[in-house]
Amino acid sequence: MQTNLTLLTDFYELTMMQAYHHAEITTGRKQEAVFDMFYRENPNGYAVMAGLAQVVDYIKELEFNDDDIKYLRSTGVFVEEFLEYLKNFKFTGSINAVPEGTVVFPHEPLIQVIAPIMEAQLIETAILNIINHQSLIATKAARVCWAAKGDRVLEFGLRRAQGPDAGLYGARAAMIGGCYGTSNVLAGQLFDIPVRGTHAHSWIMSFDTELEAFRYYAKLYPTTCTLLVDTYDTLKSGVPNAIKIFTEMRQNGTLNNHGIRLDSGDLAYLSKQARKMLDEAGFTEAVISASNDLDEHIISELKAQGAEITQWGVGTHLITSKEYPAFGGVYKLAAIKINGEWHNKMKLSEDPIKVTNPAHKKIFRLYDAKSGKMKADLLALSDEHFSADQDLTIFDPIATWKKMHLTAGEYEIRELLQPVFQNGKCVYKNLTVSEICDYAEKERDTLWDEHKRLVRPQPMPVDLSEKLYNLKQSMIATLRK
Amino acid sequence: MQTNLTLLTDFYELTMMQAYHHAEITTGRKQEAVFDMFYRENPNGYAVMAGLAQVVDYIKELEFNDDDIKYLRSTGVFVEEFLEYLKNFKFTGSINAVPEGTVVFPHEPLIQVIAPIMEAQLIETAILNIINHQSLIATKAARVCWAAKGDRVLEFGLRRAQGPDAGLYGARAAMIGGCYGTSNVLAGQLFDIPVRGTHAHSWIMSFDTELEAFRYYAKLYPTTCTLLVDTYDTLKSGVPNAIKIFTEMRQNGTLNNHGIRLDSGDLAYLSKQARKMLDEAGFTEAVISASNDLDEHIISELKAQGAEITQWGVGTHLITSKEYPAFGGVYKLAAIKINGEWHNKMKLSEDPIKVTNPAHKKIFRLYDAKSGKMKADLLALSDEHFSADQDLTIFDPIATWKKMHLTAGEYEIRELLQPVFQNGKCVYKNLTVSEICDYAEKERDTLWDEHKRLVRPQPMPVDLSEKLYNLKQSMIATLRK
Repeated sequence: MQTNLTLLTDFYELTMMQAYHHAEITTGRKQEAVFDMFYRENPNGYAVMAGLAQVVDYIKELEFNDDDIKYLRSTGVFVEEFLEYLKNFKFTGSINAVPEGTVVFPHEPLIQVIAPIMEAQLIETAILNIINHQSLIATKAARVCWAAKGDRVLEFGLRRAQGPDAGLYGARAAMIGGCYGTSNVLAGQLFDIPVRGTHAHSWIMSFDTELEAFRYYAKLYPTTCTLLVDTYDTLKSGVPNAIKIFTEMRQNGTLNNHGIRLDSGDLAYLSKQARKMLDEAGFTEAVISASNDLDEHIISELKAQGAEITQWGVGTHLITSKEYPAFGGVYKLAAIKINGEWHNKMKLSEDPIKVTNPAHKKIFRLYDAKSGKMKADLLALSDEHFSADQDLTIFDPIATWKKMHLTAGEYEIRELLQPVFQNGKCVYKNLTVSEICDYAEKERDTLWDEHKRLVRPQPMPVDLSEKLYNLKQSMIATLRK
Repeated sequence: MQTNLTLLTDFYELTMMQAYHHAEITTGRKQEAVFDMFYRENPNGYAVMAGLAQVVDYIKELEFNDDDIKYLRSTGVFVEEFLEYLKNFKFTGSINAVPEGTVVFPHEPLIQVIAPIMEAQLIETAILNIINHQSLIATKAARVCWAAKGDRVLEFGLRRAQGPDAGLYGARAAMIGGCYGTSNVLAGQLFDIPVRGTHAHSWIMSFDTELEAFRYYAKLYPTTCTLLVDTYDTLKSGVPNAIKIFTEMRQNGTLNNHGIRLDSGDLAYLSKQARKMLDEAGFTEAVISASNDLDEHIISELKAQGAEITQWGVGTHLITSKEYPAFGGVYKLAAIKINGEWHNKMKLSEDPIKVTNPAHKKIFRLYDAKSGKMKADLLALSDEHFSADQDLTIFDPIATWKKMHLTAGEYEIRELLQPVFQNGKCVYKNLTVSEICDYAEKERDTLWDEHKRLVRPQPMPVDLSEKLYNLKQSMIATLRK
């Protein structure tokens, strides 16, 4: 990622900014806005929020330097008065956000920007870019790890990632989604996450024989000795040679963490045969890992077929979220303050899923007190308060007859949005990736498996408070006139 | 993109490097290798090579700084002798490559690395990452632009790109694939490519009425006045209001480039109605542009239905190559020189498509002299020469009875691989993106439409020279023993 991402924005953000600036200086029309960044749908039963730390860095470093001003001037679109404003640009607004690693659901503001409209507009594109990307990969990783049922999953996708950042921040997001480590050394360095890897087919091929290649490797790396067994013939050459090497290591006392990696062929059959061969030779501790275009569906099927694999290297499918490679988050105006007075805003659409929720909002998350499992989310107006010592009835915002009753004492409640910037000042406490991972694991545990199912998961209710629901209905009625 | 991408590599590259280094210093075994970067298959009839300039920058800037060394030491896997070697690491090898913008086909070396094996191994991951990403997007853009049949296509995907680099270098690649411009301001600045954009729904919603919003915008941007007409109701509100504004502009003499953008609803129907309304009001020059989750298939269908759209904004599908989000390029050992003697190498596989082509190779491209259209590519050994003043017969490497005869004087020939680094020194002439785009357009023109069809395109023959074919067969026979 470039350090200065100030120009990482859509051109229309700048043309709109200049127009807002013009309105402000010529007519005194000062506007502050509330924008919500949220997603509308996802094939998964939930998403995992990620990327906030990079958004924070981006906002902190916002600055139009001389080259930027010069470049913008060269487009011929911007007047000097506006360029002068940009020279002194700083983000002065407030941002609230759902912490990284939180499980989130459609229509919930993951990032809420409350700022002069020019500032809120500038940062739209980068916020969407960063959160869309990392939440996409964290969510995909959570699916893959769920399919692996507790086995270690390693992120191996750097070579197929959509550019350096996609590899780097994708590795970070994959960890937040539940991966155990990555092959990406730069990600290891920058985010202090475990890096893993042994050797490629080219290593084996650079020796006259597979056995020589294995022996050399085992001598140098006795403590992390995973041998790639499919270069010539997995069961006739690779596994027998690996067993020879492990036997030598056992004899000379260097046997430690050891195992094999399968990278082609039928992984169910090969792993079962390899397990048998390793066990018969007394290497019951040898780890069998597998790679080769894996995704959550294949892992799930292999598990169902009794594959003897306990570590999974997942590349292309994870790092690009191949099945569904865009998160689809949007950034929509919820309210606007013109010359001191707030007006709620919403976008109508023929398509009900595209109708936005108006006003400055909060998210309340409701849990079952006994199981600790999540029951629903409730979007409410920012001045509403709910407390778990009172009974609560919530209802589906489309099928309003679908109601859920929560009895005082039997449920718990917490607010999701946390302050990140307040009047331009960062108030966000940076967490390490490892801390985020711990939190993210607990978050995933608040969901029943029914919500985590790979196909047709049970949707989580995201309801509106009565006040918000009524406001929305009355605004729809007005707008439809 | 970070400036120092030296650690943007898979961990196994470093563990293999250390092992090669150990072999070299303990046994004197010095190895030089030839690696080919190529792709095996693609749903498109061709691919567009892109990303070379970024590979060149990456290679030039390779350097393990103190932090990198410290980090690698902290993993506990590397010995001081090897870390000492890394401190002085420089790329000393040679690289040949197919120029950016060239149309390319399966199994052709797009990048060929001839270097000490340690160096060749280190750079594998970043080369794959960069070329895979940019070639993916350039190829997708070429499909989209082909579907748009000469209409302008704008790249609008930054907010859905897989991180900042994916947006930035994706915009660059989209230009190489044939796009006219991008919304990405940073890409405009860094690559000197046209940036475009006007306003969002939030601009319209920030005013009391759509008409006021349009009027304000038109006053500020009379020369690039594209009005977004779908915020409330495209045909009942948006288009009539746009016509009012254009009429005002015509009256006060400010009418210049003007048009509307459709961003929802049925684009075929709406564009035809809007065209009629604009024409009836005398705005026959008004451009109708469209966006909203477009891809090459939808554009093709809309064209077939007579949609009156002549400019297309393509976002998510283009910037993520959504239908096929990974290029799948690989990096395979083709030959190795051990202590001065070359040995050809190939990887066998049960899957014929995964069997590699051995040896240090060249690519010859064959054209029909009359039409200038491409006929086939021929992979040959690096010491082979072909000249168009002699008859040539080539044959399919699988179905060898499928032969193509080329008569002297009726065909032309050129070599594709160009020197980029020679013994560590960069000999590559940097081109501007605009120069690459011009070349890329000519390249696409060398293909018949039959190869460009979106679905089931006619494959281009990629044949092997007789010498290379025979070498491969004899190596397969030996390896199968």
